[in-house]
Amino acid sequence: MTETNHRILLASRPQGMVSAANFRSVETSLEPLAQDRVRVRNHFLSLDPYMRGRMNDTKSYAEPQKLNEVMIGGTVGIVVESRHADWKIGDKVVAMLGWQEYGISDGSDLRKVDDAQVPLSAYLGAVGMPGVTAWYGLNRICKPVAGETVVVSAAGGAVGSVVGQLARRLGCRAVGIAGGPEKCRYVVEEFGFDACLDYKAAGFGAELEAATADGIDAYFDNVGGAVLDAVMPRMNAHGRIAVCGAISGYDAAPPVMAKPALILISRLKLEGFIVTEHMQEWPAALGELGSLVAAGQLSFRESIASGLASAPEAFIGLLKGRNLGKQLVRLV
Amino acid sequence: MTETNHRILLASRPQGMVSAANFRSVETSLEPLAQDRVRVRNHFLSLDPYMRGRMNDTKSYAEPQKLNEVMIGGTVGIVVESRHADWKIGDKVVAMLGWQEYGISDGSDLRKVDDAQVPLSAYLGAVGMPGVTAWYGLNRICKPVAGETVVVSAAGGAVGSVVGQLARRLGCRAVGIAGGPEKCRYVVEEFGFDACLDYKAAGFGAELEAATADGIDAYFDNVGGAVLDAVMPRMNAHGRIAVCGAISGYDAAPPVMAKPALILISRLKLEGFIVTEHMQEWPAALGELGSLVAAGQLSFRESIASGLASAPEAFIGLLKGRNLGKQLVRLV
Repeated sequence: MTETNHRILLASRPQGMVSAANFRSVETSLEPLAQDRVRVRNHFLSLDPYMRGRMNDTKSYAEPQKLNEVMIGGTVGIVVESRHADWKIGDKVVAMLGWQEYGISDGSDLRKVDDAQVPLSAYLGAVGMPGVTAWYGLNRICKPVAGETVVVSAAGGAVGSVVGQLARRLGCRAVGIAGGPEKCRYVVEEFGFDACLDYKAAGFGAELEAATADGIDAYFDNVGGAVLDAVMPRMNAHGRIAVCGAISGYDAAPPVMAKPALILISRLKLEGFIVTEHMQEWPAALGELGSLVAAGQLSFRESIASGLASAPEAFIGLLKGRNLGKQLVRLV
Repeated sequence: MTETNHRILLASRPQGMVSAANFRSVETSLEPLAQDRVRVRNHFLSLDPYMRGRMNDTKSYAEPQKLNEVMIGGTVGIVVESRHADWKIGDKVVAMLGWQEYGISDGSDLRKVDDAQVPLSAYLGAVGMPGVTAWYGLNRICKPVAGETVVVSAAGGAVGSVVGQLARRLGCRAVGIAGGPEKCRYVVEEFGFDACLDYKAAGFGAELEAATADGIDAYFDNVGGAVLDAVMPRMNAHGRIAVCGAISGYDAAPPVMAKPALILISRLKLEGFIVTEHMQEWPAALGELGSLVAAGQLSFRESIASGLASAPEAFIGLLKGRNLGKQLVRLV
């Protein structure tokens, strides 16, 4: 074990777009481990859109990330030192240890995982928070039944790719929306969606209409804004919209909703959710997702940046949609 | 019985605001009554905001009102002629016979009512479609529990006045929003709301904040537009919004929603509904509402125009918010 720990702190709050200058790298010595604590070497850091909201100093569903503290973030790693009865060196754990190489925990926020059949990194994606997000929004809000059409935006991402695959398993038509032809091709060929539409293309509106000839019964929204406005008029009566993210407004002024009257006209249900408020659902969801990944029945893709220093640029790329699949930073 | 029937037809579709020129009065002879039919003398005609939507030739949740046909509308009346085994002269009935003095029915759309304890007109209001609308949106979508704050717009109207009274009976704080100081005073003094705010007043935003110091847990929306935009930032986490009407946009370009990002930030649920799609709920709702009115535990107010010829102007007044309580036209 080295004697130093590299960490990335939030140095300043972004005005508009996030830039590398909003972060600061520091190198610290590893502090001695106290009784009832474990030290974890982080192997992968998860980068997720929700982090953008935490960088603002505004009221939201969670406390803002504090300035000059380690950036929040999900991690998977291995226990390298333990003074805790429940944990031993070599244990593989999912945690929220943030943007740093080593983290210390009292164990309460650690979850032991087995990488015999599921790769360690997948516990940050399809078998982790993004996967459970997809599972919850689809099964608890969208509630699609066989034969219905389910649309999901950011379909190439960690959440969207799982939504479409789970919808297909329920017997639904899965239509993705993503940015650019390469992502769209991947969503169809690798994730098995029935169709995927490029929202940046000039013909997006007509393509959406053609791909949803029977209308849309459920929409899993990761982006908000213009894509939501394009989807809403295609919603069938009694359609459900799971509002999971609004990445289109994270770096800019949040957009308006063009036609809220459709909520009444089409008797729609829209529901915003945060998956960490539904912890009671996680065991069942993780069990199902883990089994599917282990059996090769749920595909996922990862975009992996190398080394902690690459995290800020990888995060900025995520906000711009440059990733395909789950964005990770490999730390070991 | 006279030999003639006065009727009001839709003569043309409004461009923007409804005007009297959109309607045409006709006088016809009473046609002979066929076998298995009953003739009803309408005593009261109900005027309701939904009628505005039917006047447009656009896709909505219901077919447009046809040109040159009798305007749609709920009615209460008395059977004056019967060639139907199930109905006899003198039966009091709720029906949808439209803007005319006499209507003919095969009985399938009639509901017999008893005016011993509930006045006949109330079956078009608190113990009719508006009352059930309030009951359904409150109990099935807003689902408030004791101690929560429930806000309702158009609080002086046929639906809103019932929403607030039912919310109070559930142990909630009921805050109304209405247009003008007279309506607001009535909503508090006669319907027993905890507070009522005039959305036309300059200090509306500050008053709403003061009246909902603990935030808003459920909002029953009859108006959409700027009032919805003012309410949404006050919604507590996991708040519910029943989208029942959007009268602010009926005569004008439908408004946008200013801050849809709040759906996610506050994990809100918004649900549009049409009460006639939930007929299985009507018996229980009508039973409860009828008992409350009969016991004097549910107040209602009526604005009554006299004579069929007054219907167009009364309807235009309704769209402009001139009514207090249920808008009716007395035909007998």
